Amino acid sequence: MSMSNASIPVFEIGLNALSAVLDKAETYAAARSIDPATLLSARLFPDMFALTQQVQSACDQAKNGGARLAGIDPPRYEDNEKTIAELKARIAKTVTFVKTLDAKKIDESADREIAFPLGPNMGHMRGADYLNHFAVPNFYFHVTTAYDILRHCGVEIGKRDFLGTIPMRVT
Amino acid sequence: MSMSNASIPVFEIGLNALSAVLDKAETYAAARSIDPATLLSARLFPDMFALTQQVQSACDQAKNGGARLAGIDPPRYEDNEKTIAELKARIAKTVTFVKTLDAKKIDESADREIAFPLGPNMGHMRGADYLNHFAVPNFYFHVTTAYDILRHCGVEIGKRDFLGTIPMRVT
Repeated sequence: MSMSNASIPVFEIGLNALSAVLDKAETYAAARSIDPATLLSARLFPDMFALTQQVQSACDQAKNGGARLAGIDPPRYEDNEKTIAELKARIAKTVTFVKTLDAKKIDESADREIAFPLGPNMGHMRGADYLNHFAVPNFYFHVTTAYDILRHCGVEIGKRDFLGTIPMRVT
Repeated sequence: MSMSNASIPVFEIGLNALSAVLDKAETYAAARSIDPATLLSARLFPDMFALTQQVQSACDQAKNGGARLAGIDPPRYEDNEKTIAELKARIAKTVTFVKTLDAKKIDESADREIAFPLGPNMGHMRGADYLNHFAVPNFYFHVTTAYDILRHCGVEIGKRDFLGTIPMRVT
């Protein structure tokens, strides 16, 4: 298995699934006359990120993780999304970016040191460790918590919505 | 990067982190005279799994995912845990099991078809796809949701508790 296999399609499938989950949230809000902003500001505890920040952070883990492994500077986003449509646009922009990454460069990054900002400090990890123990878990943390917030708000989604369109045959 | 690198230590670190999160839940419950059973039965929505099942499922994804990639039958657990200590024992048993898996067999599984029960059906995926798009996301789904339930209940845990002891140098 290559580093690029374990990153590019992982982020792409997870982000597309998150976008489809947001569609279901929008449909749910419309059907119940709930202001979608109420869902976007929902959170599981007062000092946790609200849904908007969970979606932004999922995108950031994908774009930052992917860019660092490919050896390029991650693009900066403004974090100014105010609607579900804007969050879906951020997700789409991130999927497009991730798909432009140089798979060969990512494949060569397994033993390269990745340095990244960590609050006021810098974290340093081997490329493969950074992917397996930082970028991927953080990515799923935010995708799952976005899902959990919407589930907590009553949106009818299930595990398949979380997994998204995966290369699986069912018999 | 090898398939075994992207599975065995991923499950081990994530499960050990989950065990430490349960320790913090136990300390929190004791400090506030909360019956730990209240936390174990907490859930984010009535038809979601409660904390106990989230922890059981995280273990199952690790043991089943790891075993199938290594080409052996996963051990069966009884799902009879009633206390935090029993859930921690299930986690410890799973970590021990995952560490016994044949890394070479897992490394050879990238292109092998993995067949696994999926409700009343069977799912079929290439080994690398099964790891990247099924076992790992499902694993993090349950670890994150366990964390989210405890966070929602007020337990003081942060992202570092979720990530666990990762091979990172901070400067």
